[in-house]
Amino acid sequence: MDAHRHPIAPGAADKCRIEAVYRVRARASHIEARAEALALEQSVELPRAAVTDRRVLDEVIARVVDIRTRPAAGADADAGTQAFDVTIAIAAETTGSEAGQLLNMLFGNSSLQDDVELADLRIPAGFARRFRGPAHGIAGIRALTGVAQGPLTCTALKPVGLPASGLAALAAAFARSGIDVVKDDHGLADQASAPFAERVPHIQRAIDGVNRAEGRRCVYAPSLTGDLRAMLGQAALARDCGVRMFLLAPMVSGVASLAALARELGAPLLAHPALAGCARIARPLLLGRLFRMFGADATIFPHAGGRFGWALSECEAIAAAARSEWHAFAPALPVPAGGIDAARAGDVAAAYGDDAMLLVGGSLLAGADGVEERCRAFVAAVKGLAQ
Amino acid sequence: MDAHRHPIAPGAADKCRIEAVYRVRARASHIEARAEALALEQSVELPRAAVTDRRVLDEVIARVVDIRTRPAAGADADAGTQAFDVTIAIAAETTGSEAGQLLNMLFGNSSLQDDVELADLRIPAGFARRFRGPAHGIAGIRALTGVAQGPLTCTALKPVGLPASGLAALAAAFARSGIDVVKDDHGLADQASAPFAERVPHIQRAIDGVNRAEGRRCVYAPSLTGDLRAMLGQAALARDCGVRMFLLAPMVSGVASLAALARELGAPLLAHPALAGCARIARPLLLGRLFRMFGADATIFPHAGGRFGWALSECEAIAAAARSEWHAFAPALPVPAGGIDAARAGDVAAAYGDDAMLLVGGSLLAGADGVEERCRAFVAAVKGLAQ
Repeated sequence: MDAHRHPIAPGAADKCRIEAVYRVRARASHIEARAEALALEQSVELPRAAVTDRRVLDEVIARVVDIRTRPAAGADADAGTQAFDVTIAIAAETTGSEAGQLLNMLFGNSSLQDDVELADLRIPAGFARRFRGPAHGIAGIRALTGVAQGPLTCTALKPVGLPASGLAALAAAFARSGIDVVKDDHGLADQASAPFAERVPHIQRAIDGVNRAEGRRCVYAPSLTGDLRAMLGQAALARDCGVRMFLLAPMVSGVASLAALARELGAPLLAHPALAGCARIARPLLLGRLFRMFGADATIFPHAGGRFGWALSECEAIAAAARSEWHAFAPALPVPAGGIDAARAGDVAAAYGDDAMLLVGGSLLAGADGVEERCRAFVAAVKGLAQ
Repeated sequence: MDAHRHPIAPGAADKCRIEAVYRVRARASHIEARAEALALEQSVELPRAAVTDRRVLDEVIARVVDIRTRPAAGADADAGTQAFDVTIAIAAETTGSEAGQLLNMLFGNSSLQDDVELADLRIPAGFARRFRGPAHGIAGIRALTGVAQGPLTCTALKPVGLPASGLAALAAAFARSGIDVVKDDHGLADQASAPFAERVPHIQRAIDGVNRAEGRRCVYAPSLTGDLRAMLGQAALARDCGVRMFLLAPMVSGVASLAALARELGAPLLAHPALAGCARIARPLLLGRLFRMFGADATIFPHAGGRFGWALSECEAIAAAARSEWHAFAPALPVPAGGIDAARAGDVAAAYGDDAMLLVGGSLLAGADGVEERCRAFVAAVKGLAQ
């Protein structure tokens, strides 16, 4: 078997299918049955024989449309299994056009099976239109920060445990050094050491002060946590004191919260990858495309060579997924992060090109003194300025 | 190195540490450094040298308290690495005592690193008290269903795509056959084929009719989907027409939504494992203990031998984690599922003991006719009744 494609029967139903590509490990003799089982699992969750309703048979059961052998890797042979790319056409109607349910229909039950990964997704234009994508995207973040061209800079307020005053002092130093976006560390939530309602006004005031005094446009993005109502309450409080950008971790909060916040906050959202790395969903798909489709304006991911061990090709694929043309979705800003050494920032910026935001955290804070100088050097390196 | 334990300094801070156990793959010569990096990653996200605040150093940075070599498995030797159990004491204050943030501090960033799994969690009593656990638990589900002793039975309404009337007719058949709990298939959301607001009253009426006519106490658990506000709206509508139990998938909705619904709905919650299987968080910990801690009254998981390939020992560990004594948390009901053949139901029920609910779906629906008879046989087998 090399590649065999079962065409979807033409007609109105065509428009209502999304195509998910799964990487499946199986014996060649079993792959057809495994692919069929996958199609059933991600639609009716029943043996085909147990489905008697004509419409369900014709329009709802997912269909295997392609099975393709992947190039053999060295280690595969031992177990007698091979890797296949299996494309399943899933009835769009089963997703209810809702972010969480889409994820559920793409990989909910199959996530429980060790032999399969979700690799890719193709959606028809009519389905894409039911999701809004980034409301602001790269253009919106450029407008907000006043960075009309070239890469942007970002850093994180940390460590968790500092009082609000300490975090605000650090935020002011970051703003003075010319960093474009200062975000909460994703570990900052609503903790007693710096409760959201105390921390956020304090930090926003500190940054506003620097912006006024020095004519800068540094933007603060606090972290929204808890359930959706808690997040909306935090956002309302933050907006009242001038916050215009937010951070959230969609795999912790649920992607439906991302979609709701994107609809309602009227401010760019940075998506953090916490809990997302291990989902056996291809990272470019999850962090680059799905988060974008659900409304993330920027997507943070660990750059290769930092402390997360992701391949450079994977990081490039995430950036491409976030930025490249995809239906009418505005491009989302790729934010490489995860232990980038400030000394390498210029090279990393060059590798991602103009439409990216470099997030450097710990490397700027190493050592008690000189934070502001290191930040200035980071900004200069990313902006390609001689210092 | 065999096992070396650094005792946590005694004092008030002790009470504020939770202990997370990670399974780490590393070279023996690197494990101490890897464990230290893990402790930093899951707390301050900074190199230790970059932390200058005394309180953060003393009370907030996570500490490595134990590194233990795991028994070697055959395949490990090749790569020159070994498996270790690394115990990290995480400052409870960093979690804000909130479900999502707890998951974030346990595994948010480390989920992005391929060499580590979250294996276990130990929490002090003071921290446990900040979470409510199941509000109803096994006793509450028994009270609601009127099943004072012995295992319970459950099935799922499917397939997605049927109209509300078709699902309601199926629900009535299930109720007539004596099944204790009829839940929505987790693929049922708010789809055009059977919108929540139409489906749920229809099904509840059908089940109520059977309950009245035959003196039964079958309970219907519809699936709540979307963001928290959507879920609360669905729940309010459902409760108005008599629904007294709900299903949700916490890894899709976010665990904070589970915690919020557990606080507010006043009805038992069944947790579905969609998206939870691939999280590289040990399944007994995630499905058995964390879901329980966050308020799930019952936890659904694929039984060994079905179509998900989980080991029997893992299923037993999930059931034990859900039911065994753990702080003041009420025990949660284990719900083995995932392709159990109705013909095996008696044996499976015997294996889990009295405090379990068997969820059989597809096997009851296989074939157009005889659903009710198959359901009756399933109920009889689980209840240990001769038919």
